[in-house]
Amino acid sequence: MSKAVVLRWGHRHRDERLTTHVALTARALGASGLILTDVKDERIKKTIDEVVSKWGGPFFFKMGVSWKAALRDWRAKDGLVVHLTAYGENIQVGDVIQRVKETGKDILVIVGSQKVPSEFFSPEISDFNIAIGNQPHSECASLAVFLDRLFKGKIKKFEDAVLQIIPQKHGKKVISKVKPK
Amino acid sequence: MSKAVVLRWGHRHRDERLTTHVALTARALGASGLILTDVKDERIKKTIDEVVSKWGGPFFFKMGVSWKAALRDWRAKDGLVVHLTAYGENIQVGDVIQRVKETGKDILVIVGSQKVPSEFFSPEISDFNIAIGNQPHSECASLAVFLDRLFKGKIKKFEDAVLQIIPQKHGKKVISKVKPK
Repeated sequence: MSKAVVLRWGHRHRDERLTTHVALTARALGASGLILTDVKDERIKKTIDEVVSKWGGPFFFKMGVSWKAALRDWRAKDGLVVHLTAYGENIQVGDVIQRVKETGKDILVIVGSQKVPSEFFSPEISDFNIAIGNQPHSECASLAVFLDRLFKGKIKKFEDAVLQIIPQKHGKKVISKVKPK
Repeated sequence: MSKAVVLRWGHRHRDERLTTHVALTARALGASGLILTDVKDERIKKTIDEVVSKWGGPFFFKMGVSWKAALRDWRAKDGLVVHLTAYGENIQVGDVIQRVKETGKDILVIVGSQKVPSEFFSPEISDFNIAIGNQPHSECASLAVFLDRLFKGKIKKFEDAVLQIIPQKHGKKVISKVKPK
């Protein structure tokens, strides 16, 4: 099965909570890790480390890598690049997710902002530009729908979790386990 | 076809951007409107009004209604209530979305926070408690996946849009139209 790694571009200091939501969404919906490019933000790293420690992994978080270096590394491993953007092919119509899956490649998912460099849209950078509806909304929402459709039917197992939710029709149930050494 | 309306509970002043993302996600992925309960936040109203004016509607935004009144109104119209929570039935396994659809009812989707009142989980409030994976992540991501799965194959048409994206495999294309009177 293909892996997905998220590349978060354009994070600013004030984006702490949004980028944290993007990272937690990446983890919850089956991505292997997130690369926060060009900047470092220890607040996000701390939250992710805590969530992985309590709720399980594996899930990696890297930061401060330049986006060009991250893309070069990905290309060197023959990985596919998917850019999520309102301007791309709409995942709600047509077969774009099918074409992505058929490559069989590991996927770098670029999650940007309104102001991504125009070269992100070019075939040199992005094999696919994919929209979750061609409307302005949220990078967090777009990532969620993309990963849900990509991994549908393949549920991620979280390892070494201390906390685990037992799904309930009504009410809350969480079990705690002693962390394996 | 059933309608969906989003009820956003627990918004605080510092949540402006997250709640805005929730509202834009609601609009983009087919909901009819959003009710921000218990508080007012003119900043969100302004953004939503601008997006609807440029990108089309209809999409309503109400704020300052008490959550109890909003739920009472919804129940009076025989609507269904779905609470999105990490503790609920996992949409990724089983048939919960199918059971929701089979009711044929209009749906009020409660999007809360970590600290929702425990009564939200009870059958008196929520007909369904649904998790998008039983992991902590993001209310925006959860709403996106729920609406995507609910409305899959039914694409919302936006009326009276001034701006419209023409999807592209590479590059950006937006057309501007004169707003109908």
